[in-house]
Amino acid sequence: MEILVTGGAGFLGQQLIARVLAKGTLRLADAQGARDEPVSRIVCFDVGEGAIRDPRVKNVAGDISDPAQVRALVSKDTGAVVHLAAVVSGTAEADFDLGMRVNLDGTRHLLEACRALGTAPRLLFSSSIAVFGGALPPVVTDATTPTPQGSYGIQKLVGELLVQDYTRKGFIDGRAVRVPTVVVRPGRPNGAASGFASGIIREPLSGIDAPLPVPPETEMWVASPRTVVGMLLRALELAPQDWGWHRSLNLPGLTVSMHEELAALRAVAGDAVAARVKPELDENVMRLVRTWAARFDTARASAMGFTADADFASIVRAYVEDNPQAVRGAAN
Amino acid sequence: MEILVTGGAGFLGQQLIARVLAKGTLRLADAQGARDEPVSRIVCFDVGEGAIRDPRVKNVAGDISDPAQVRALVSKDTGAVVHLAAVVSGTAEADFDLGMRVNLDGTRHLLEACRALGTAPRLLFSSSIAVFGGALPPVVTDATTPTPQGSYGIQKLVGELLVQDYTRKGFIDGRAVRVPTVVVRPGRPNGAASGFASGIIREPLSGIDAPLPVPPETEMWVASPRTVVGMLLRALELAPQDWGWHRSLNLPGLTVSMHEELAALRAVAGDAVAARVKPELDENVMRLVRTWAARFDTARASAMGFTADADFASIVRAYVEDNPQAVRGAAN
Repeated sequence: MEILVTGGAGFLGQQLIARVLAKGTLRLADAQGARDEPVSRIVCFDVGEGAIRDPRVKNVAGDISDPAQVRALVSKDTGAVVHLAAVVSGTAEADFDLGMRVNLDGTRHLLEACRALGTAPRLLFSSSIAVFGGALPPVVTDATTPTPQGSYGIQKLVGELLVQDYTRKGFIDGRAVRVPTVVVRPGRPNGAASGFASGIIREPLSGIDAPLPVPPETEMWVASPRTVVGMLLRALELAPQDWGWHRSLNLPGLTVSMHEELAALRAVAGDAVAARVKPELDENVMRLVRTWAARFDTARASAMGFTADADFASIVRAYVEDNPQAVRGAAN
Repeated sequence: MEILVTGGAGFLGQQLIARVLAKGTLRLADAQGARDEPVSRIVCFDVGEGAIRDPRVKNVAGDISDPAQVRALVSKDTGAVVHLAAVVSGTAEADFDLGMRVNLDGTRHLLEACRALGTAPRLLFSSSIAVFGGALPPVVTDATTPTPQGSYGIQKLVGELLVQDYTRKGFIDGRAVRVPTVVVRPGRPNGAASGFASGIIREPLSGIDAPLPVPPETEMWVASPRTVVGMLLRALELAPQDWGWHRSLNLPGLTVSMHEELAALRAVAGDAVAARVKPELDENVMRLVRTWAARFDTARASAMGFTADADFASIVRAYVEDNPQAVRGAAN
């Protein structure tokens, strides 16, 4: 079986590909039960080439907004598609046309390419808690109406609706998961407005200062890269009947304040490292963050076997373990 | 001021154009108050030419899925757009690509054409109660999450989301209204799965038999063409601050069972006419109808001054008044 991972060169895509390579199989459950399907090839598609070199990985660099390129990524052998490719929230807001082209048209081209196969491949769409925002209840539940406050959230929600309809029509076996803010995101800051939640852990650990643009009591709904990759694979592997009619799902996470993030950083890496975070309020960031959902009741996901990280300190420790080269001066 | 009406040659479009011509103005309210804007021209766009001949009406036949044609419909003089063009529910379900091309791409082309003007014109999008369906609460409220069960409802909901985001970005001043099932729809049956609710009034009044494909206790959420046209104009004329952030609205209607429709037909036109309705259950229609919402609490619309028809008998009487040529053998 072949797997296509769009946005595969990003850090989540690379971690997901590495995990599938290590396992060698995907356990795709269906009405007949679960079977371990050997993975013969993973197509890693992104704007640039992925870094993983393995005989089973085919790295393809290209443009998801070009339907012909997208069609060439799938074949009758494509048993599963993980659609991570997207321009992030800040970028989609700053460049409306780019966001529409990649997040909306790109998703549609991918759905059409899968439909054209006639094999109804399994497809996982990475959506976001950015579909929620504005005047929200104190706790967002599976029944809360999505009310996106930005173009990124709108485009993700449109993607969910198309995944829902393509699934109902039998064109694909689709699933969409609303991923919490991924913390700690490794590497360099990207265009995501939520980036500071990773930056205040990542930069101090690498020995440099980081601004905290929001008040320390600001809460966010987060999950670690390890946990998110595990949840993405679970979402892909679950049987269609485990999903039922509604193919969008709020994933579990942790509600964490920036104060709690800093306390965890201090506990793991010491006072000197935590002191590298400098309060530097940014009205633009605060205005955005205030509209985000930070508390969820993810009962449906729990019943489907999805679980969150244990606590924020374990998120910091996992980051230190997974990114030894990016950590300098962590005391504990 | 110019007005563009897409789908303008349809019966709702023609009634709306006739009403604006008779009035000669649109009363577009804004933060400074309400002003009566003289209407210098109405562009009536549809797949075929509209029937209204008036020096102020420019009839244009074309394809809304062609962006160049859509761009040519608007100019700096375009002060308001009423977007009615769509392929109906049954057709969108039977021909998925046509539904996507007209209902989704067409809407997007229109939004882009309006955005390109740089004048943020007022735009009214005709959405549908088909955005609701499936496992619904007994009464749908303004807080109920849309869960479309068909491609038509999905496409309408995507249109709403785009109207919402184009408005937030300041590209247009958009509004979207979820129109009840329009009864009595004049003319010939169209591809709408809900068509029988009009057919069982219209066909007997014109002297021919009509099948009732659902049990008589089946309820629907309906409004008359007159009332819908009035609500469309109100939605267009209200000030942006009357709408606020959320630009989608459930319109008022009447909950009516097919039994009540037949009783009203009997009261207005007599037993012999009502006897032309023949029970003829159709599993396909019943399966669709069962997923539709029939009871609403439209508190927000009421607060904004929208009102429903008085009762179903007045809907039948209005149809008889407005369509004398289509009525034969109505006794009362």
